Amino acid sequence: MIDYNPKNWWKFIFYFHKSDTFSKLMPAMLGIAAYTAIFAYVENNILHYVPIRNPLTVHSLVGFVLSLLLVFRTNTAYDRWWEGRKIWGSFTNNSRNFALKLSTLLPEGHTSRETIRILIGNYLQATKDHLRGKAKVDHLTFTATYNEDYYKDHKHIPNRVAKALYTEIYKLHQEGLFNLEQFLALNNELSSFTDNLGACERIKNTPIPVSYNIFIKKIIFIYVFTMPITAVLEYKFWSIPIVTLVFYAFAGIEIMAEEIEEPFGTDANDLGLDNMVVNIKGNLLEIL
Amino acid sequence: MIDYNPKNWWKFIFYFHKSDTFSKLMPAMLGIAAYTAIFAYVENNILHYVPIRNPLTVHSLVGFVLSLLLVFRTNTAYDRWWEGRKIWGSFTNNSRNFALKLSTLLPEGHTSRETIRILIGNYLQATKDHLRGKAKVDHLTFTATYNEDYYKDHKHIPNRVAKALYTEIYKLHQEGLFNLEQFLALNNELSSFTDNLGACERIKNTPIPVSYNIFIKKIIFIYVFTMPITAVLEYKFWSIPIVTLVFYAFAGIEIMAEEIEEPFGTDANDLGLDNMVVNIKGNLLEIL
Amino acid sequence: MIDYNPKNWWKFIFYFHKSDTFSKLMPAMLGIAAYTAIFAYVENNILHYVPIRNPLTVHSLVGFVLSLLLVFRTNTAYDRWWEGRKIWGSFTNNSRNFALKLSTLLPEGHTSRETIRILIGNYLQATKDHLRGKAKVDHLTFTATYNEDYYKDHKHIPNRVAKALYTEIYKLHQEGLFNLEQFLALNNELSSFTDNLGACERIKNTPIPVSYNIFIKKIIFIYVFTMPITAVLEYKFWSIPIVTLVFYAFAGIEIMAEEIEEPFGTDANDLGLDNMVVNIKGNLLEIL
Amino acid sequence: MIDYNPKNWWKFIFYFHKSDTFSKLMPAMLGIAAYTAIFAYVENNILHYVPIRNPLTVHSLVGFVLSLLLVFRTNTAYDRWWEGRKIWGSFTNNSRNFALKLSTLLPEGHTSRETIRILIGNYLQATKDHLRGKAKVDHLTFTATYNEDYYKDHKHIPNRVAKALYTEIYKLHQEGLFNLEQFLALNNELSSFTDNLGACERIKNTPIPVSYNIFIKKIIFIYVFTMPITAVLEYKFWSIPIVTLVFYAFAGIEIMAEEIEEPFGTDANDLGLDNMVVNIKGNLLEIL
Amino acid sequence: MIDYNPKNWWKFIFYFHKSDTFSKLMPAMLGIAAYTAIFAYVENNILHYVPIRNPLTVHSLVGFVLSLLLVFRTNTAYDRWWEGRKIWGSFTNNSRNFALKLSTLLPEGHTSRETIRILIGNYLQATKDHLRGKAKVDHLTFTATYNEDYYKDHKHIPNRVAKALYTEIYKLHQEGLFNLEQFLALNNELSSFTDNLGACERIKNTPIPVSYNIFIKKIIFIYVFTMPITAVLEYKFWSIPIVTLVFYAFAGIEIMAEEIEEPFGTDANDLGLDNMVVNIKGNLLEIL
Repeated sequence: MIDYNPKNWWKFIFYFHKSDTFSKLMPAMLGIAAYTAIFAYVENNILHYVPIRNPLTVHSLVGFVLSLLLVFRTNTAYDRWWEGRKIWGSFTNNSRNFALKLSTLLPEGHTSRETIRILIGNYLQATKDHLRGKAKVDHLTFTATYNEDYYKDHKHIPNRVAKALYTEIYKLHQEGLFNLEQFLALNNELSSFTDNLGACERIKNTPIPVSYNIFIKKIIFIYVFTMPITAVLEYKFWSIPIVTLVFYAFAGIEIMAEEIEEPFGTDANDLGLDNMVVNIKGNLLEIL
Repeated sequence: MIDYNPKNWWKFIFYFHKSDTFSKLMPAMLGIAAYTAIFAYVENNILHYVPIRNPLTVHSLVGFVLSLLLVFRTNTAYDRWWEGRKIWGSFTNNSRNFALKLSTLLPEGHTSRETIRILIGNYLQATKDHLRGKAKVDHLTFTATYNEDYYKDHKHIPNRVAKALYTEIYKLHQEGLFNLEQFLALNNELSSFTDNLGACERIKNTPIPVSYNIFIKKIIFIYVFTMPITAVLEYKFWSIPIVTLVFYAFAGIEIMAEEIEEPFGTDANDLGLDNMVVNIKGNLLEIL
Repeated sequence: MIDYNPKNWWKFIFYFHKSDTFSKLMPAMLGIAAYTAIFAYVENNILHYVPIRNPLTVHSLVGFVLSLLLVFRTNTAYDRWWEGRKIWGSFTNNSRNFALKLSTLLPEGHTSRETIRILIGNYLQATKDHLRGKAKVDHLTFTATYNEDYYKDHKHIPNRVAKALYTEIYKLHQEGLFNLEQFLALNNELSSFTDNLGACERIKNTPIPVSYNIFIKKIIFIYVFTMPITAVLEYKFWSIPIVTLVFYAFAGIEIMAEEIEEPFGTDANDLGLDNMVVNIKGNLLEIL
Repeated sequence: MIDYNPKNWWKFIFYFHKSDTFSKLMPAMLGIAAYTAIFAYVENNILHYVPIRNPLTVHSLVGFVLSLLLVFRTNTAYDRWWEGRKIWGSFTNNSRNFALKLSTLLPEGHTSRETIRILIGNYLQATKDHLRGKAKVDHLTFTATYNEDYYKDHKHIPNRVAKALYTEIYKLHQEGLFNLEQFLALNNELSSFTDNLGACERIKNTPIPVSYNIFIKKIIFIYVFTMPITAVLEYKFWSIPIVTLVFYAFAGIEIMAEEIEEPFGTDANDLGLDNMVVNIKGNLLEIL
Repeated sequence: MIDYNPKNWWKFIFYFHKSDTFSKLMPAMLGIAAYTAIFAYVENNILHYVPIRNPLTVHSLVGFVLSLLLVFRTNTAYDRWWEGRKIWGSFTNNSRNFALKLSTLLPEGHTSRETIRILIGNYLQATKDHLRGKAKVDHLTFTATYNEDYYKDHKHIPNRVAKALYTEIYKLHQEGLFNLEQFLALNNELSSFTDNLGACERIKNTPIPVSYNIFIKKIIFIYVFTMPITAVLEYKFWSIPIVTLVFYAFAGIEIMAEEIEEPFGTDANDLGLDNMVVNIKGNLLEIL
């Protein structure tokens, strides 16, 4: 995630970073400009077509419903992005609350304090990697019991860490350090971790229904590629920037929605998971 | 559900899978093209009508309110689809949490562990089949007690499985394996299963009010079938692709909404319940 | 509520059931057609007005804001309808859960089992009748204690049934059948019944603020009745179907919103409360 | 709040009650009609300007974004209104549940029953008055302990009543009538009263950010007052009703949003708090 | 936050406070007026271009999707603003409820009453300052134990205050003033403070994805700066106010969204945190 000052107009207007929508669409925009130029030349200079009235009436009709669909697309993508952000805010709060409860129940200096602190950190680290494709064992911190052997050859590393956490809590319960009610309460806290992971996986694995994706892309394509046919009669070579910028407006919204609908990656618009994991680990170190 | 890469533009623009909206609408689109062609020929070549100004003004007025209605339709359909997805995410979490609690309370090797694991799997299997029309007894796994005889001749198989689960929990409570509070807590977990099923049935059995369905279809019909009357005067034979594509834009949105508003089927856009049930059963096997 | 297959296009396009919006608006549509015909005849054939350019520009401006208001209206009406559906889903779940808890706590064959089963059924029956105007005592099932005399001469029958349920639970608590915590838990379950009833009454008794209702109807009226003034100059007698269908589009949306915003009646679009009450009573019979 | 039948079209179309939006805007509408008439006379009859093409293109561009802002305004205002309604529904339920719990815990005939019943009634009465400007001591019912002296010279009367309720509950706890858990549970119920009051105050004291209010009013003003400049060239004296009605459409939506965004007053669109308080007091009398 | 009467139309229409959107945009508006004037002079008086038909058709197409994006922007910004308001309403309620519970559990005159009251006040004070950039130690009230030394050299002052609160509660628990259940309940109340802080930080640190910010500003820029090219042909020097006001409408909505999306500052539209903190401190003084 890029941290930025939203009030800086000039910078943004003339900002052409490589991760910017404008830059991403540049090759396609050049292609469409060339395509429109050919139409403009052929219709005006070779075939000498005469202008028609209201050359864009039909595009106006369809542009309306396309705009509304793009806003629907943007809203659903943003909702996923914001839900992802809330889930990671919940990870932050839950890990701290879980640690605070344990720090009350466990005597100072008990060896499990460090183990559990490391395991929570591992859980979040593994979750982040898992959401970005594949959890990597060598990103984890090992303890005597939960070392490389414990993790390797397992597919779903976050669940493996969760199992270790459950085992530790169960062991402490067996040692009589907390009674059944407290044990079940801590179990519930752990459940909230796996529930959050489940919600992240839901966002990651359930994109918007494929029909909408196909439909929006098809309509944008038809819309932009039929526009020069009539537009060049009215606007001559001015239609080159016009069609290009209309394409930028519509395709840009779709591109941005694609970026944020899966918010756990490393794109400029994705959530800053790296920072969050580091912050949480720092918090845990203070508490446990 | 089809898993796909949402960023693949070219593939989607030229994608004509049989379950794609474009392919589904193809016969209707051909019909409308022919219908428009007849108008174009008759009005221009036989009757020699003269063009009118602003041939599509009225369609523009009505197209606006129709577009807004279609977005309303899309939003409500998507909300059902996403709610369905959340409910099945909740099934995943609840079944795992329920199993985890039991695995703590039941001694290792207790025979009820396997019975309950099988029953939870059956519950989800039966729910999936039930939501797709009819739960099938031969999709279930039988145990000594809950065998084919137990299920057959019952209409609502998921409720029958739930009853078996309640009975097992009650029996274990009678055996003194957990106290009243723990028994009631487990009962509450079971309630969440039946609540989820109730929510799925609500989505499945309560489509959008029939008036909206009729109204939207009527307006699309009137809109598209009156369009050639004036459009052919201005756009001549070009109105054939124009009217056809306007029909594609409006009817496509309605078709997609129809597909996702009942998300438990086996359409390309429906939720991947098959995979989810298999995954949950795998999780249970690890826990209990 | 009418159960229907949403994918049947042809049926809906040519469907003119008496409860259909089209049929309901038919008399008004005929009136507007006649009104427009008079304008068309007078302005074109008697006064011989000349056409003006852009006859519908102002209607386009106002039509936009009117369309947005109608969508606002539709969204709020649909939210009530769907909230009503959720409340009745909650009635279904709560009555079953309440019965399940009691069936665990009460010994098999205890006389209160039947009494409470009948009272829950009565509660839902009375609630349904109450929401449809007036609860009728003769729709209830009587027991020895809670017979016709108990209910008659009371205005708010559902509350009267709730009082009977509270009395029964209190009596069982006095008999020592469950301890204070269990008693309070059951009390909470009963509260959820009365909370649901309160939510239904809120939906029923709080329509959209009257200003919006007046405003939307006034704007539709002005919009449609001023349209022929200029439209007949451009579209001649074609303006008769045009104005009529524009009226159908706008008034139809308002009519549908009126129907679903109060979802507890017996209209074609209202919720199927009759079936739900029957289903719940069937479920209770199995449990208690 | 006015209770009305939403399906009565003719009544609403010709309804000009003094609290109606149309009546409220009448003086402004007359002023705008006069203003437009002056333009029409000067430009057409004195200066003899010639018509321009597309006189309202710019108004169409701006009208679009203004309409969307007005719908945003309407949605947020309606959300407050509906949230206010839900809070008062919650007051109804909570006061009844609180009374029901106490009626179980307190022996029949205990003097605190009446005191607490009066205090709850006072709380809601004082809250209503407080939300309408200033809680009035003489609207309250006094008891021996909590008489006029207790309330006078205090600014925030609802909090003063809440303190009396807390004191009573604490006293009963000291008398040993309920144990610590029950005492804390009752405390939680009381918290929900003050939480609801806090939510009402939030709605009342936090209007939509002032910038939006200024912006919308400025845009409506500019929009309507610049409209005659070009409109009179095309529509001559017909522009008088046209501009007036466009003003009615836009300003009416803003006026209605202003009315409902603060839903606790005594306007025709505000919530019927008077009735609700009377109903709740009646319910309490039956229970305690 | 500015407190205002939303019904005062004339005041707002002619209100040009320095924090008003109109005043903020004034310099940019003057620049755009000059820019348009140059186009008008050059195209009409030097180059003598002839008018084209429909000069703003393309702007109408793009203006539509831009308007929808701006409403999306406004909705998300407003949601943050309102969520921020709810969180601070929750701070108010939680601090009062926490104080009320403690005042019941701690004997009158216990020294911890004052300490905890001061710490809660410090927490909210530090949170406010923290959200506005940097918590300042000299804004806090010191006690014997938690004096300047305790706070200085720590970055995250609110967490430092929270630690003090946890320590105090833990100490009182060790002294036997409340049992484990009550201790855990108080811990949960404290968690709600840190959860609220986390939610505030989420709103503050996670602006809308940067792509949207860049995209909207770019489109507004392109939209406004290309408008004079064709508009001056039709509207001559009238296009100066026209383009300027169109810029005001679009940029104004973006500017307002920027202001409210981060609602914890000291802008005219931001939440009145200063008053809230003072009010809460006053409430605490009455209770503890």
